[in-house]
Amino acid sequence: MNALNVSEYVQTLGLQAKAASALMAKADAATKNKALKALARRLRDSAAELAPANARDIERATAAGLSAPMVDRLKLTPKVIETVALGCEQLAAMPDVIGEISGMKQQPSGIRVGQMRVPIGVFGMIYESRPNVTIEAASLAIKSGNAAILRGGSEAIESNKALADLVSASLAEAGLPVDAVQLVQTTDREAVGQLIAMPQFVDVIIPRGGKGLIERISRDAKVPVIKHLDGNCHVYVDDSAPLDMALKVVDNAKTQKYSPCNAAEGLLVAASVAELFLPEIGAVFAAKGVEMRCDPAAARILRAEGALHGETGTIVDAVESDWSEEYLAAVISIKVVDGVDEAIAHINRYSSHHTDAIITRDHINAQRFLREVDSASVMVNASTRFADGFEFGLGAEIGISTDKFHARGPVGIEGLTSLKYVVLGQGEIRT
Amino acid sequence: MNALNVSEYVQTLGLQAKAASALMAKADAATKNKALKALARRLRDSAAELAPANARDIERATAAGLSAPMVDRLKLTPKVIETVALGCEQLAAMPDVIGEISGMKQQPSGIRVGQMRVPIGVFGMIYESRPNVTIEAASLAIKSGNAAILRGGSEAIESNKALADLVSASLAEAGLPVDAVQLVQTTDREAVGQLIAMPQFVDVIIPRGGKGLIERISRDAKVPVIKHLDGNCHVYVDDSAPLDMALKVVDNAKTQKYSPCNAAEGLLVAASVAELFLPEIGAVFAAKGVEMRCDPAAARILRAEGALHGETGTIVDAVESDWSEEYLAAVISIKVVDGVDEAIAHINRYSSHHTDAIITRDHINAQRFLREVDSASVMVNASTRFADGFEFGLGAEIGISTDKFHARGPVGIEGLTSLKYVVLGQGEIRT
Repeated sequence: MNALNVSEYVQTLGLQAKAASALMAKADAATKNKALKALARRLRDSAAELAPANARDIERATAAGLSAPMVDRLKLTPKVIETVALGCEQLAAMPDVIGEISGMKQQPSGIRVGQMRVPIGVFGMIYESRPNVTIEAASLAIKSGNAAILRGGSEAIESNKALADLVSASLAEAGLPVDAVQLVQTTDREAVGQLIAMPQFVDVIIPRGGKGLIERISRDAKVPVIKHLDGNCHVYVDDSAPLDMALKVVDNAKTQKYSPCNAAEGLLVAASVAELFLPEIGAVFAAKGVEMRCDPAAARILRAEGALHGETGTIVDAVESDWSEEYLAAVISIKVVDGVDEAIAHINRYSSHHTDAIITRDHINAQRFLREVDSASVMVNASTRFADGFEFGLGAEIGISTDKFHARGPVGIEGLTSLKYVVLGQGEIRT
Repeated sequence: MNALNVSEYVQTLGLQAKAASALMAKADAATKNKALKALARRLRDSAAELAPANARDIERATAAGLSAPMVDRLKLTPKVIETVALGCEQLAAMPDVIGEISGMKQQPSGIRVGQMRVPIGVFGMIYESRPNVTIEAASLAIKSGNAAILRGGSEAIESNKALADLVSASLAEAGLPVDAVQLVQTTDREAVGQLIAMPQFVDVIIPRGGKGLIERISRDAKVPVIKHLDGNCHVYVDDSAPLDMALKVVDNAKTQKYSPCNAAEGLLVAASVAELFLPEIGAVFAAKGVEMRCDPAAARILRAEGALHGETGTIVDAVESDWSEEYLAAVISIKVVDGVDEAIAHINRYSSHHTDAIITRDHINAQRFLREVDSASVMVNASTRFADGFEFGLGAEIGISTDKFHARGPVGIEGLTSLKYVVLGQGEIRT
């Protein structure tokens, strides 16, 4: 396909998605759940048929010299397939929020006014290597009564096509329109440019992938984008923090896993507890090989003779850019602050408004932190690693948003819906 | 000011608004209500001082040859001032939604997760002639804990400056930052271009005015816009409609006022009742001078000898563009449809997704209309004229949105807020 043909092809997908979305919006819960269960069954039954397609992707990726972790992400192992199949079944078991009416109240005129939750229409999902995202996005579309256009990574195209065939068959089996979930079948980059610029067909774009991809999409999209660019998350250890709790939570927030967006990248410690607390956490970080980028006060404490309980740690003088950085690695910035005021000010200035936590026993400081820290998730005495749709009880996670408009924080099915007003009258007129 | 200076000036307003928004966000309800009541008092006390500024605007507008209705809109009559003062007092009497925590539930890990309603930050309001919007926007900013930058029409600049002085004095009296509400003090058009392109300072733009203004702002804005472009609203008279109710509601929806966006512009009538109903409503329209643009079936009925009960009506053959048009005048399009299916299809194709109503006694058709019509407000047996923040019980109306993202339909204070997650733990960590 040339660029013009790609553009026309993606517009056709848009037109078809729009038509399918009207049918999906009125589908009942039983029909949508039937499709989800059929998809789970087909995934398990088709493991042998998925294998050759997946093998071709892996072969191509290996030949192209992709790194081992990149190739690993492509693999549709039995475990990966079982996980996505289970995910479909879990979605099927969840209550259907579509059609739900809330807040119905009688007004002085006599009319009753409430709000009905309805699908948003059509969403576009743009993602990189992992082919399992194809099933996650498809199942979310089905459950939420939306249509979806999926654009996976070019390295997973064969696997994605095989998976999309299973989705189509499952939709057909339940009597739902097969165009409700369409995979962009070309790897041409122009397809992404067109997908994000069709407000007449696509209501929202959800990108998943590296910061570069997400920045590009946010800049060029002509429709709303649900996204977060980075997760520069903080833990603040307050004056009254129980230090054993602080040690456990800070350790978990930083070291349980380095790559997630909800891992802590910055540690703030109240001056009154810094002399006591920093050597303890410093020893843990040193033992785990976590590099500490410190302000002068923290560096002085951590560089003191014997401070790290005999461990050898890497203490580096922080520079201004350290306060804004998302390391996604065994590195943390550390700063000693006067107290809760300076902590809140530092976080509101440098954090990426993703997730920030306070460790404290002080009720007033906890309340102030919750109210004044301008982040999507604010926590008291819990690890930032909990900022996740499943841990928050949403039953599914479409993504995490650091925007304030529409969805904020971990986004579940409701992020793919909107509320319309319903008015019930008995012939009332306006006077 | 030259263009560069204007741009720098508006950026300074943005920086100041951002700083003020942090203080507004943590202001308590009593303080915000104190500012609102002070503003009401100052408005009533300052009628004599507002008059000269307003007189200068009116003089300039008259000299510039503005039409009489345009000049009328500029006038700060005692009645207008009393209305906005009362509006401030009504907002003060409303409960404060900021800080409200909802849905707090314990999760399997032990953490409790809920959502806190917080201000969205800074909004920009762009409006045309009426100076009273300055007070409406200022009072909404104060109540919702946001900061606002206001850009009124150039023809009302003197009045707006005088009103903005009252707002500043009221904020100061309550101990709130005066930069929480700032009026753009220049009438240079470049100011609008800068105001809508500062995502680092402004979180959402609310334009009020003609379609041209709103289209331009939506196209060029780099931040979300809460808006509706037009209100092509419909009433569908179903097979089982009580015809006396239909007559009353259709008449009200069309003729109670021609200019509002929630007035009906299209009438759909089920074929089974068209012969009975159309002559009745046709006679009403004819008597009131409402031009009827009809499809062939409706035209045939309305042009029949004696159909209009002796009234002389204007029956015009509709062309394709009539189905999409927002007349805002004594004109209505009329079409005979097979039944609820064709009515829903017609509305979803041609309406502006603002407000559409069905008149029916049939429960199943009513439910289908509510679920399947893809509009911001859907109504059964009520006049479309009710689509309004006050009639819906929101206590205030910032605007009406025909978008599905964030706010949809009449937007109250909640449209200027977002929900952040709050997590309460006792030292829980992720395993």
